[in-house]
Amino acid sequence: MGWNRASIKMDIEQFVALSLGEWRSMRSGHSLAFQQFEDVLSEIKIKSFEGDNKEVKHLIQLSSVPNESDFKAPFQMEWNAESDWEPDDPSEVSAGSCIIVPIPTNAKSGRLLRSVGYAESIPAESNYTFLDDGTFILTTNYDQSIAEERIWFVSDNVRCRSSVLKTSEGSGILQSSFASEVRRVKA
Amino acid sequence: MGWNRASIKMDIEQFVALSLGEWRSMRSGHSLAFQQFEDVLSEIKIKSFEGDNKEVKHLIQLSSVPNESDFKAPFQMEWNAESDWEPDDPSEVSAGSCIIVPIPTNAKSGRLLRSVGYAESIPAESNYTFLDDGTFILTTNYDQSIAEERIWFVSDNVRCRSSVLKTSEGSGILQSSFASEVRRVKA
Repeated sequence: MGWNRASIKMDIEQFVALSLGEWRSMRSGHSLAFQQFEDVLSEIKIKSFEGDNKEVKHLIQLSSVPNESDFKAPFQMEWNAESDWEPDDPSEVSAGSCIIVPIPTNAKSGRLLRSVGYAESIPAESNYTFLDDGTFILTTNYDQSIAEERIWFVSDNVRCRSSVLKTSEGSGILQSSFASEVRRVKA
Repeated sequence: MGWNRASIKMDIEQFVALSLGEWRSMRSGHSLAFQQFEDVLSEIKIKSFEGDNKEVKHLIQLSSVPNESDFKAPFQMEWNAESDWEPDDPSEVSAGSCIIVPIPTNAKSGRLLRSVGYAESIPAESNYTFLDDGTFILTTNYDQSIAEERIWFVSDNVRCRSSVLKTSEGSGILQSSFASEVRRVKA
């Protein structure tokens, strides 16, 4: 694929470094029970966390990981989404930001703390791991659901992101989504 | 995720066995240059190849693999797609079928021959490999483009399929797609 996957020894610091920047995202959501599609264009900004380490430590205190855990490469994510259905309806525009703090267990996996979760608007704690080709897999247990997200780079400037949300009990799949993200390269 | 990924030692025979059946597919295509979405509902039937082995041998003869290569678990795929934009317009309905012949090199990877390719309507030859979590990755070189497809099972009855099509020269990404596929369980 041009991009030399064989050379990848992906760890969380390299993954965050590759992710930093501004991205234009095309995201399709699939509601499996109702067979409904939702297509959304959005802007995503990922930048190194510039705040105080106190904020990071506070997030760690709220979590289940030991207080003195070593975190790596904390970052901040901002998004600004606009549904393509109702571009003039302000209620269809959603925006937000969160702080994300990785806490590696080893080179391939660890915990990831987020100030706001995706599926539910509360602080979220996830497990992450890298597959042998560098694909990042994030698993989050919410109260009522489990989310699995995968992110993989197709090139330095294109990444794909999929998610599947299922009920905690049994095998009900609620919805899935896929985003194609292209880096905004400054002129 | 409920489905016990840790127990997976995926090989091509197990992958084909899991794929057999009828699937209802929600597929979203992303044209990255034009930021256009295309959402398509389709039916996919995957069944063991019931034809003569002569057909399989013929496909092998047309390919670059040695004639006496051992094939495993050949299968047939039929699809019937209907764009959700123009459900009444027959020109928007596409259907087809192809024969697929895997030729393993080892337990994790090999070649895969198809009587019709996805991106171009000619016989296609691909490389496949499995990641350590059982994700199937298929790479196909066409005349003008390279396609990478990934298929992973979320449960026995739900699988995800993504594809990225890029130009052979350089790093231009033409389009991507994602399908959520739910097995039709007979009542």
